[in-house]
Amino acid sequence: MNNYCIIMAGGIGSRFWPLSKDNYPKQFLDILGTGKSFIRSTYERFSPLIPDENFLVVTNAAYKNLVLEHLPELKPDQVLCEPARRNTAPCIAYACYRIQSRCKDANIVVTPADHLVTNETEFQRIISLGFDFLKKQDNALMTIGIKPSRPETGYGYIQVPKQNELPEVVKVEMFKEKPNYETALKFVAEGNYFWNSGIFLWTLDGIMNAFKTNLPDMVTLFDEGKDKFGTAEEQSFINQRFLDCQNISIDYGIMEKSPDTYTIPADFGWSDIGTWGSLFTHAQKDADNNALRGKVVSVDNKNTIINIEDGTEAVVEGLDDYLVAYRDHSLLVCRLHDEQQIKVWIEGLK
Amino acid sequence: MNNYCIIMAGGIGSRFWPLSKDNYPKQFLDILGTGKSFIRSTYERFSPLIPDENFLVVTNAAYKNLVLEHLPELKPDQVLCEPARRNTAPCIAYACYRIQSRCKDANIVVTPADHLVTNETEFQRIISLGFDFLKKQDNALMTIGIKPSRPETGYGYIQVPKQNELPEVVKVEMFKEKPNYETALKFVAEGNYFWNSGIFLWTLDGIMNAFKTNLPDMVTLFDEGKDKFGTAEEQSFINQRFLDCQNISIDYGIMEKSPDTYTIPADFGWSDIGTWGSLFTHAQKDADNNALRGKVVSVDNKNTIINIEDGTEAVVEGLDDYLVAYRDHSLLVCRLHDEQQIKVWIEGLK
Repeated sequence: MNNYCIIMAGGIGSRFWPLSKDNYPKQFLDILGTGKSFIRSTYERFSPLIPDENFLVVTNAAYKNLVLEHLPELKPDQVLCEPARRNTAPCIAYACYRIQSRCKDANIVVTPADHLVTNETEFQRIISLGFDFLKKQDNALMTIGIKPSRPETGYGYIQVPKQNELPEVVKVEMFKEKPNYETALKFVAEGNYFWNSGIFLWTLDGIMNAFKTNLPDMVTLFDEGKDKFGTAEEQSFINQRFLDCQNISIDYGIMEKSPDTYTIPADFGWSDIGTWGSLFTHAQKDADNNALRGKVVSVDNKNTIINIEDGTEAVVEGLDDYLVAYRDHSLLVCRLHDEQQIKVWIEGLK
Repeated sequence: MNNYCIIMAGGIGSRFWPLSKDNYPKQFLDILGTGKSFIRSTYERFSPLIPDENFLVVTNAAYKNLVLEHLPELKPDQVLCEPARRNTAPCIAYACYRIQSRCKDANIVVTPADHLVTNETEFQRIISLGFDFLKKQDNALMTIGIKPSRPETGYGYIQVPKQNELPEVVKVEMFKEKPNYETALKFVAEGNYFWNSGIFLWTLDGIMNAFKTNLPDMVTLFDEGKDKFGTAEEQSFINQRFLDCQNISIDYGIMEKSPDTYTIPADFGWSDIGTWGSLFTHAQKDADNNALRGKVVSVDNKNTIINIEDGTEAVVEGLDDYLVAYRDHSLLVCRLHDEQQIKVWIEGLK
């Protein structure tokens, strides 16, 4: 099997403080109480399509052991360590150079480590469809588009040509930055706009050519160490040179500039669970619309998230539209609709 | 010095859950954030009047080490261990038999371990006054009466004869059980009723005679082991016989039945801090009337207690008239005026 999966797991994410922190970012959490962390679920979602030895996880060195704890099927050398975050383009380039050292005709799927998918069967069907398309068109750069269910202003959109019946794989007309609310309403109404999920498919050749065309400096930089990938010298090369990469996303650096980009409009129950609010949307609720996780006695609460780490217990009474979260010696109690302020408030603890 | 102090520290107190628990009752807490636990403050309050070697703490065996941690000035044999709680009369009898083994003409002050006194100088003046009175009248049984500042229904009251000018030491006319609100209002208005603080003074002879008169069975029981107090055999005697003592308070068993009871009406900023509400009354508040303890960022809260153990941090936003407490892996968030329900709620965690 030449199918490879790159899991991007370098995020730090303070948005879910106190559940996520620098020392324990969101991808390692089981925020939804499914019994599995996001990164574990991500791995399991791809596992039927990708042999264990063909997974690569790109993360920070600080999280290497956490990754191996959550994914014991992987060997330590499958966890690639960035010395610092440089956005998705350098992250993906690093992983592709590693793949190149082993397999010249790889098909690659790239995925964030911290998203939710509720319909895994449909998900696997869509990804297989993408791999099949690459057999016909091996320079295609593909991204999975999500059929929008609401006028979300927090995501980028993918525009495809208006047509009566959409094919399963569609040429992208244009990538759209995060819209304002009115524009988002229009996008949803028109039917030919999709959320950009951050899941990509391409062949090794396809993405390498795209790097050469669009980010040639990055290629020059990685080519310096071409022979070191997959050897004992790789990490020291990366530690020396990775910081010099341009800090740029794969969307902005390559996808938006390439002529051969395609999308597969999909509907498999996707969310990036980027906010407590979206967690609330996706979590199981009790009869009073509370999302409870952990050993909690909930009395007279409504529309409230209570999320308590294992080994802790809580009695919570008399809240409506609140968020109560405790983990790792840190407690948060706040109005759910004020969650955007969390980053500001925690500055006060420093 | 023949002045002895008995500190009764056997309480378990779930009213301050999660701060107080079976394994860490209220007397060991620094709920008010003074930097000292209640038992430590109690010791320090009496320390100018009582030599270190004349303190006795009566507690449960489970708390012996905690007592010695909080009061390192005491030797282990100054901590008397009840095998089970039998209310205040057996507790005091035990300590008096121990004192009797060392000193026949002791003056004794008995105190709970978990009360608040804000004016220690006045407190020491009052206690000294009591010791002085015992020199004149060595059969007197004295209790400190607190000048009532509100129609409190949670305390017992001491009635003294109506008179234009109260002497410093007054003969008690009658002990009154906890009144209802109307009666409490009347007591406060009449001026000759005082809160029963649970602080007692007497000579060893005085209290021993009172035990003989009022609780002769208890005397018979303790007399069996008379020679064992202060020896290596004391604990095994107590372990065998203490459980057979009548479960009765010193107020009901002796004070209310004795003819020679006196009180010293006092005003030294006393509270038993029996509820979160009374804690709130006595705690320092910020500009928005919040009582904060610990590393807390408080945003847009009013009239709220936030009490977080050391080593923990919290962000709390948008609460009015709430209680947020975290200690020892347990979290409580509830309306402050619903605190009477805490005991019921925590049953749900079992």
